[in-house]
Amino acid sequence: MIAKLLGIAKPLVLAPMGSVSGGALAAAVSRAGGLGLIGAGYGDAAWIREQFQHAEGARVGIGFITWSLAKRPELLDLALSYKPCAVMLSFGDPRPFAAKIRQSGAKLICQVQSLAITRQALEAAPDVLVAQGTEAGGHGGERSLFALLPAVKDIAGNTPVLAAGGIADRRGFDAAMALGADGVLIGTRFSASEEALTSPQAKNATIRTTVFDVVRNFDWRGITGRALRNKFTDTWQGREAELKQRMDAECKAYYAAVERRDFDTALIFAGEAVDLIDSVLPAAEIVRRIVH
Amino acid sequence: MIAKLLGIAKPLVLAPMGSVSGGALAAAVSRAGGLGLIGAGYGDAAWIREQFQHAEGARVGIGFITWSLAKRPELLDLALSYKPCAVMLSFGDPRPFAAKIRQSGAKLICQVQSLAITRQALEAAPDVLVAQGTEAGGHGGERSLFALLPAVKDIAGNTPVLAAGGIADRRGFDAAMALGADGVLIGTRFSASEEALTSPQAKNATIRTTVFDVVRNFDWRGITGRALRNKFTDTWQGREAELKQRMDAECKAYYAAVERRDFDTALIFAGEAVDLIDSVLPAAEIVRRIVH
Repeated sequence: MIAKLLGIAKPLVLAPMGSVSGGALAAAVSRAGGLGLIGAGYGDAAWIREQFQHAEGARVGIGFITWSLAKRPELLDLALSYKPCAVMLSFGDPRPFAAKIRQSGAKLICQVQSLAITRQALEAAPDVLVAQGTEAGGHGGERSLFALLPAVKDIAGNTPVLAAGGIADRRGFDAAMALGADGVLIGTRFSASEEALTSPQAKNATIRTTVFDVVRNFDWRGITGRALRNKFTDTWQGREAELKQRMDAECKAYYAAVERRDFDTALIFAGEAVDLIDSVLPAAEIVRRIVH
Repeated sequence: MIAKLLGIAKPLVLAPMGSVSGGALAAAVSRAGGLGLIGAGYGDAAWIREQFQHAEGARVGIGFITWSLAKRPELLDLALSYKPCAVMLSFGDPRPFAAKIRQSGAKLICQVQSLAITRQALEAAPDVLVAQGTEAGGHGGERSLFALLPAVKDIAGNTPVLAAGGIADRRGFDAAMALGADGVLIGTRFSASEEALTSPQAKNATIRTTVFDVVRNFDWRGITGRALRNKFTDTWQGREAELKQRMDAECKAYYAAVERRDFDTALIFAGEAVDLIDSVLPAAEIVRRIVH
């Protein structure tokens, strides 16, 4: 059902990870039978153009951070000019964008992290919901997939639901389907693919944190992101107020570390599934291993 | 395999919930084909005797909080005098108790919340591991079941692994088995059974918290417990230091609320699966609905 709806052979969607899910990775997932979504992140017009070009005509979609898109709505027009087959919205009210997306012919995918957010998303009449468990890398909520997914499914009516968070192999795919999912959305496993723009540098424990948002001056209003633990999280987790007071020095030091690719300080978003990843593989091989 | 090992017909074990899993509930789960574990909690000799009597000769086991048992090891001798078929240990080093449990003929079940804790538990050569996701009610760790369970299974060798946390219906059972579990351990769903000593009074959101341990003066050393949100957690979460300074008044007020069963203040442990529970049922019917 979801495969037919999205026009794909396998019920697997690439999470639109900012700085990771570029056009090449999205195209590779789509060519392997799934659906690749370019990760627009906070939004940069030149970067979006470039990634659609890297997709080389493959049938791909794109994902936005809703609250960030609301500040620069022209980026949606830019994305729609490339005729994406789907647009995914997360973290914010999708209703202001729903009509325009549907009129373009793209499917609207809304990601949700709780039952309250699900009820709000359903008001936008999305084609697909994504129930994102707290296992997922990057920003997300506090609910775990195991109990969130069936609860979302119970109130979603006929809207299909993809499972996201913690899925990295066939076991996770089968478990998600057993919980009632119509398919899966996978991020972290594909960050360790040959086509990813950046990959995790370490198989480390993850933590939900705001410290990287504080130091980068992004206002996520309490929504935490799951990232690999490193010296920076060990230093600042629980001392966010102090970090804010030292922003001048710390922000400069942080971006200097990013520049020299020093991942003792720089952020790498990753989900709990990092434990299950042992090798960097071509994206098509990852798709083949996960979906029967 | 696990069924044969534990001498049961269905691979389902009742979580030894303190103040909830008494002898009657444990016996009902065992008579329905699973394995009921009495929840010894912080340990009270008279209560343990009473609950074994309420089990009326049914084949049941018992579960202890390991760090609490270490302060009163004589409670293990008391429990073993009732010939439990299994003893489950959680939260602490199981090694000092392993030999005595095995010599009694009981199976040793060790509950784990991370890969580091799994490695320690394996040194006690347990008969069974329980991988407890953060979805679970009561005390637990930070890892979600979806990615924790396969990672534990990958290092457990031949030791069977039960899945715990967030499982309340057949979907959860099937998903756990898909993730590689040998069976499931279920708490919250049975707290809404006719035989439970106490039941959730509300279908509310849950939260991982230390505030109830602070006000009750239990030293869990940073391990949080998942409980229903109420006015007490809304008031004190994030203000634990202030709560400690006001202990004289707040501790008295807390226990007065417990006394009058005021659940705006009093603790009810519950897992994320509360969303999936719509009715109080006989324990045997719950077993029948979850396991094929």
